[in-house]
Amino acid sequence: MNNPQLNKNGELQHLLSTEGLPSRILYDILDRASAFVDGAGRGEIRKVPILHGKSVFNVFFENSTRTRTTFEIAAKRLSADVVNLNIASSSTSKGETLLDTVDNLCAMHADMFIVRHAQSGAAHLIAKHVAPEIHVINAGDGRHAHPTQALLDMFTIRHYKKEFHNLRVAIVGDVLHSRVARSQIHALTTLGVPEVRVIAPKTLLPSHVEQLGVRVFHDMETGLRDVDVVLMLRLQNERMQGAALPSAQEYFKYYGLTQEKLAYAKADTIVMHPGPMNRGIEIDSSVADGIQSVILAQVTFGIAVRMAVMSLLAGDK
Amino acid sequence: MNNPQLNKNGELQHLLSTEGLPSRILYDILDRASAFVDGAGRGEIRKVPILHGKSVFNVFFENSTRTRTTFEIAAKRLSADVVNLNIASSSTSKGETLLDTVDNLCAMHADMFIVRHAQSGAAHLIAKHVAPEIHVINAGDGRHAHPTQALLDMFTIRHYKKEFHNLRVAIVGDVLHSRVARSQIHALTTLGVPEVRVIAPKTLLPSHVEQLGVRVFHDMETGLRDVDVVLMLRLQNERMQGAALPSAQEYFKYYGLTQEKLAYAKADTIVMHPGPMNRGIEIDSSVADGIQSVILAQVTFGIAVRMAVMSLLAGDK
Amino acid sequence: MNNPQLNKNGELQHLLSTEGLPSRILYDILDRASAFVDGAGRGEIRKVPILHGKSVFNVFFENSTRTRTTFEIAAKRLSADVVNLNIASSSTSKGETLLDTVDNLCAMHADMFIVRHAQSGAAHLIAKHVAPEIHVINAGDGRHAHPTQALLDMFTIRHYKKEFHNLRVAIVGDVLHSRVARSQIHALTTLGVPEVRVIAPKTLLPSHVEQLGVRVFHDMETGLRDVDVVLMLRLQNERMQGAALPSAQEYFKYYGLTQEKLAYAKADTIVMHPGPMNRGIEIDSSVADGIQSVILAQVTFGIAVRMAVMSLLAGDK
Repeated sequence: MNNPQLNKNGELQHLLSTEGLPSRILYDILDRASAFVDGAGRGEIRKVPILHGKSVFNVFFENSTRTRTTFEIAAKRLSADVVNLNIASSSTSKGETLLDTVDNLCAMHADMFIVRHAQSGAAHLIAKHVAPEIHVINAGDGRHAHPTQALLDMFTIRHYKKEFHNLRVAIVGDVLHSRVARSQIHALTTLGVPEVRVIAPKTLLPSHVEQLGVRVFHDMETGLRDVDVVLMLRLQNERMQGAALPSAQEYFKYYGLTQEKLAYAKADTIVMHPGPMNRGIEIDSSVADGIQSVILAQVTFGIAVRMAVMSLLAGDK
Repeated sequence: MNNPQLNKNGELQHLLSTEGLPSRILYDILDRASAFVDGAGRGEIRKVPILHGKSVFNVFFENSTRTRTTFEIAAKRLSADVVNLNIASSSTSKGETLLDTVDNLCAMHADMFIVRHAQSGAAHLIAKHVAPEIHVINAGDGRHAHPTQALLDMFTIRHYKKEFHNLRVAIVGDVLHSRVARSQIHALTTLGVPEVRVIAPKTLLPSHVEQLGVRVFHDMETGLRDVDVVLMLRLQNERMQGAALPSAQEYFKYYGLTQEKLAYAKADTIVMHPGPMNRGIEIDSSVADGIQSVILAQVTFGIAVRMAVMSLLAGDK
Repeated sequence: MNNPQLNKNGELQHLLSTEGLPSRILYDILDRASAFVDGAGRGEIRKVPILHGKSVFNVFFENSTRTRTTFEIAAKRLSADVVNLNIASSSTSKGETLLDTVDNLCAMHADMFIVRHAQSGAAHLIAKHVAPEIHVINAGDGRHAHPTQALLDMFTIRHYKKEFHNLRVAIVGDVLHSRVARSQIHALTTLGVPEVRVIAPKTLLPSHVEQLGVRVFHDMETGLRDVDVVLMLRLQNERMQGAALPSAQEYFKYYGLTQEKLAYAKADTIVMHPGPMNRGIEIDSSVADGIQSVILAQVTFGIAVRMAVMSLLAGDK
C-alpha cells in the first residue's frame, strides 16, 4: 500500500491531506471528536490524560497564531507537553536544511509534529523522513492542503445536517490559492456528498477544477440555488492588488455573501468560514453574525477534531 | 447594578480597573493573596490545583515580557494551562477585527483572558463582549488602568504598614501618562488612605487631577514631607524627547528620588516602583537598592496577588 | 573555596563552565544522564516528577531556538513549569540593567535560570548575583563556554568508547570563536583523555592555545591520524566574509571533513558536530549521514544530560 498516511495495517500514521483518506478514517475522526465535544454546559472539553508524557512539537515555518493556538490547546487538553517552534527565524536562517532541522527535533524524542509551511509538500516530505513512531499532522502547506480545517468543517456540517449523502455544498471564493478548498473538496466527495459546487470568477479557479468532481459556477445566484451548506473562503489581501481581481468593492459586489445572495440558497442553509474573515469583502457582517452562521461553532469543534486526530495517531483506542 | 466588573450577586466578574471596586472586593483579594504568600522559607508559593483543567489566555496586543511572565507564573502555580498570544503580529494584521479575534478565542473555550492593549478601554470592550463564564483581567490598557499593579502595590503597603487609614502616600512622576497612577489613586482612596499626594511638574499632570481626591505638589521637599509611602512612576523614554520635559538630567535634579530628597519623608517611609526602573532618571541607585526600597518585594507579592485575582474570578472559595 | 560553581560542601551550585569542575562532578552528571537514557524501545525518556512545582526560566538574551527547545523539553520531562523569556526585545530595551532584570525574575521565585547571552561572563555575573537557592545554567555565553554541549559530547564519547583514558580526540575548525571548543577541551582533559588535538588554520586558533593542554595541527592528514573521536565545529557564516578565511570552498578543501580525510583516522572513529551543520562547508553530507556519524545521538543524549544537570542542581539524590 502506497498511501503515506496509513500504516501497513491501514491505520492513520500521519494526517497530511484529506485526499486519499478512506471514509472509515474520516468517520473515525468525526466520531472521536463527538466524544470530546459531548459534555455538559457550554460543551466544555475536559482535560484527559491520553497524551500524558508525550511531546507535541508545533513546528511553524510560517507564522499562524490562530492555528498554532488551536493545536496547542488541543494537545494540552490531552495532557501532552507542547513545545512551540517558530522556525522562520531560527536554524534554517543559519543554513541548516529542513530535514536536518527535522532530524534534530526527532532526536529530541518528539512524538508528534504539527507542521505549517509555505511550501506545498513540506509536511509530506517530513512524514516520509521521520521514524515510524513519530506522527506528522499537516497544519497547512502552501496551496496544497489543510486537512484539520476540512475535518472540522465536516464535523460542523454533520453536526447541523446529520448526513452527507443528501447535501448540496457550495465553496465560494478564491479556490485557486486555497489549501482549505482542496481539502474540503476531497473530504466532501469521500464522505458521499452528491453535489459539491465551486463559485468563483475564472481568475480564481484552478484549471480543470471539474476533474476534482465539482460543478463550476461563476455567479452566486445560480451557484447558491438549493444549497444546504455555504463554505466561504478567505480572500487574501495580496490577491486584491494583483491582476486576479479588479478591486475589493467589485469582488464584494459579485461574490461577497450578503443576506440578498444568501436568500438564493435553502432557508436552512448554514454559512461557514475558516477565518480570519474580511468583513465587507468576502462576507457581509449581517451574514457573519446572522442566525445561519456557524462560524464560531467551527472554531469550537476544531479543538475537538484536533484532539481526535492526535488521539487517533497516538494509538488511543 | 451597572458595574461591569461585578456580577448580579456583587461578586467579581472581571478585573478591569480599581475604579468602582468596593473595598470588600479589594480586601478579599489582599486576604487571598496573603494565604498564597504565607509559607515557609523564602515565602515560596506552592503549586495548587485551583485552576486545573482551566485555560488562561495571555492576550497581549502590546508587548510586555515582564507582565506577561508574572501572569504566566501565577496561572501555572494555580495549575492552569496557559496559552501566550502575541497578537500584534497576528490576525489583526490580517484585517480581522478585535472582537472577531476575541470571539475566536472564546470559541476555543478560554476560561480567562489576560488582556494588554495600547488602547484605553480595550479590556472593558472585551469584557462586555464575552459570555458570562469567561473572565477578563486588564493587564494594562493605554493610559487608563493597570489594576493588578495597583493591587500588588496595596498588598505591599499593607504588608509593611499594616493599615491604610493612617497613611500619607505620595505618587511621584509622570502621572499624566500613567495607568499605574490612576489605578493606585482609586485603590488608595477606596481603602481609606486619608491623604494621597501627587508630585510632578505641571506638564506631567492631568488637568483637574485634584478631582481624583489627591493633593497636588510641584516640588519634592514639600510633597514628601511626613509621607509614609513613596510610589515612584516610570518615566517613559519617549516623554523625554517631547515637549513635556527639558531633559533627563533636569528631571532627575528636581524629581529624581535621591537619599537627600527621601530624607524629607518619614524615617520609615517605604519606596516603591512598578519597574522597569530608569536608574539615574526617576530614581537614584542608592535609593533603589537602599533599605527603604521594597521594590523587589512588590514583584514577589505580584505573583500572589495575581493568583488571588484569578482564583477569585474562578469562583474558588 | 573560590569556585563559583560549587557550594561550600563541594556540590554543584551552578553550571557555568566545564573549566574548574572536578571530575567527580562530571562523572556524577554522566551517570545521572545514563539513568535517564536507559529505557526500553527507542530510548524514550520517561516523564519524572523531580522538578514538580519548580519554575525553570529560559532567559535567552541571544536567540537560539534549538538550545532553548532542548532545555525546555528536559525541564518538562522533569515536570517543571517552564517560562520562556526572549529578553532581547524586552526590558533591556527599555533601559533596565541586566541585573535589575535578573532581580525581578528572582523575585518571581524562579528556581533555575537557563541563561544564553552574547557576552562572555554573563551567566557568571548572574550566578554571583542571585540568592543561594537559585541555580544558574550557562547555555552559552559569548566565546566563553557552553558546558551542557560539552557534557553531552562527553556522554556521547563515553557511550561509544566506554573509557576516556585511552583516547585521542581531535577538535576541528574555528576554535578561536568557539565556546563549544573551550568547554570540550576542559572537559576532555579533566576526564583524563591523554591526547586532545586541535586542527585549524592559524587564523582560527587562539594565541597560546597549547597552554590549554592540546596539540596543534594545521592539516587534517597528520591531525586526524590514529584519532578515536572527531569533534567538528560549526563555521559561522560571518567568519567567511571576514579576513579570517579566503572562501568557503577553500575552507572545505583543506578542513571540510570528507570520507577521504576521515580515512586518516582510525577505522572506528566517531564523528560529532554540535549543530546546526553547514553541509559542504565544514562537513560533507556523506560523512554527516555516514555510519561513523553520531551527530543525532548527541541530540538525544543532550536531553538526558540537561535533565541530569537540572536534577543535580535541584538536589535530587
